[in-house]
Amino acid sequence: MYKSADLTTIKPFMTGADMDRADQIRVDPDKLAEVMNWRARLLKLDALVPGITPEGGLLWNSLGELGENCEPLFLGMQEGKAHFVELPPRDGTARPVQYDPRVWQAIAHMPRADLALYGAARSLVDWHNRHGFCAVCGSETHVAKGGWARHCSNCGAEHFPRVDPVSIMLAEHDDGSQKRVLLGRQPRFPAKRLSALAGFIEPGESIEEGVARELWEEAGIVVRDVRYVTSQPWPFPSSLMIACIAQTDDPALTLDTTEIEEAHWFTVDEVQAAMANDPEAPFIAPPPFAVAHDLLRYWLDQQEKN
Amino acid sequence: MYKSADLTTIKPFMTGADMDRADQIRVDPDKLAEVMNWRARLLKLDALVPGITPEGGLLWNSLGELGENCEPLFLGMQEGKAHFVELPPRDGTARPVQYDPRVWQAIAHMPRADLALYGAARSLVDWHNRHGFCAVCGSETHVAKGGWARHCSNCGAEHFPRVDPVSIMLAEHDDGSQKRVLLGRQPRFPAKRLSALAGFIEPGESIEEGVARELWEEAGIVVRDVRYVTSQPWPFPSSLMIACIAQTDDPALTLDTTEIEEAHWFTVDEVQAAMANDPEAPFIAPPPFAVAHDLLRYWLDQQEKN
Repeated sequence: MYKSADLTTIKPFMTGADMDRADQIRVDPDKLAEVMNWRARLLKLDALVPGITPEGGLLWNSLGELGENCEPLFLGMQEGKAHFVELPPRDGTARPVQYDPRVWQAIAHMPRADLALYGAARSLVDWHNRHGFCAVCGSETHVAKGGWARHCSNCGAEHFPRVDPVSIMLAEHDDGSQKRVLLGRQPRFPAKRLSALAGFIEPGESIEEGVARELWEEAGIVVRDVRYVTSQPWPFPSSLMIACIAQTDDPALTLDTTEIEEAHWFTVDEVQAAMANDPEAPFIAPPPFAVAHDLLRYWLDQQEKN
Repeated sequence: MYKSADLTTIKPFMTGADMDRADQIRVDPDKLAEVMNWRARLLKLDALVPGITPEGGLLWNSLGELGENCEPLFLGMQEGKAHFVELPPRDGTARPVQYDPRVWQAIAHMPRADLALYGAARSLVDWHNRHGFCAVCGSETHVAKGGWARHCSNCGAEHFPRVDPVSIMLAEHDDGSQKRVLLGRQPRFPAKRLSALAGFIEPGESIEEGVARELWEEAGIVVRDVRYVTSQPWPFPSSLMIACIAQTDDPALTLDTTEIEEAHWFTVDEVQAAMANDPEAPFIAPPPFAVAHDLLRYWLDQQEKN
């Protein structure tokens, strides 16, 4: 199988699971039954919080640990073993999902392959949790294709897990003497934290049009020459972050303050200081597990090359 | 506002609507009421087939033409005029949506900005048609945010239009003397038509991992060095096509024949012949409105530069 590390030079967190998702097994009940043997491993999430080993990795159980009325969702094959994640029953007994600081602690210390697997598993379980009914007819749906679909036995509709593409971007302005990038803060950010602007891509627009619209709506700037940089799955709950850099000729800002509290332009030196966690830096950089961090690192690297 | 033409060098069909989606109007009922005036324009779709002018463009009506029990969905502002698309009632009177050759005839002759608008409008209407019920609780939902959401008054859930990211890719193999790209055919393609392989990006994977997985699953090849090329919204029903090129060191194919009937490697000369509609070419190229066409054109251009 391919190795994620060979695919890109930038390697955002949440990528690199390197598990064969084995779609030929998903769609074949006989093959699926065959891999549900004593070697099979099971990840259990408690309201989406993973079990963690003393070393900080994902805690895998044997498939025999599957809880009563739970369903196993097939994640894929690794080292000859089938890997599943447990879907809790829809009977009201599961603990409700809420913001949990243990998730962020676990993420900060988890090996990267485990983190990527957790992200996939979390997105999948969360999608099932929130999609028990058919959007077409309102009837109950049930798990299909090893966990990668839900089927409505009333109207026959098949529903697939959502992946919501999000554009996340640096606007860059070159005034002839120096280049600067635009960073902003959402009201929910911790103090002094700034990051790249972002927004969901909508029906009828390309990635690049999504980038231009967000910068127009949120910061009031007109951009040109949008360049793709990297991408990252973000399982809160099901985003695909698509990171880009766009150019602007006019840095004057008109902020949509319902979306962003403040936004400013920063020089290479200022971004460098923030990325080095310099206490004198004008802002706190996005954390390493956010793709905005990779985007700023890439931008700094490009400046050094020029 | 930004101009789509300034954003990218490759300009796939379905991009370039250049309409201000004006999200500040969507979310504000007073502002929305204000733009629903005598200047406002309405697009009517008959089972998703657009009305067409004698010149081949989209036929816009005045908002007063809104059908009984229909709802106007706000597309955006252009030249001071609000643009809407009509959502038919959910009472069973609307003609059912099915494959309609008139859509493809219209697409082939429509001005590009109109085509991009039609794509957005079609995706939006089709999403509302298929999402009348809440996936969380099964209750009926109703139009919110000017048409860009549905709201469940039973459980309070908000639902947003789906955009499904799809990776579409050329695998490239360089044997030292020449480069070749991989093209395949799905069973539903017309005779001799080949195109780039493609598949939905899943929760927990990056764009690049989606590319590598599809080529592994469908063609049995291992790739490295995935490069992004361009993107295109594809409103059948709601895909975001993300076009990439990946390298492989071993061109031996193992096809998943449930997904693709055949796949072969083609040289620059062979691709050039197909793109020039040469009757002697070994295959028929994807049509110009497909992003696979842009991808092959880009690949040919790159070969000329090297």
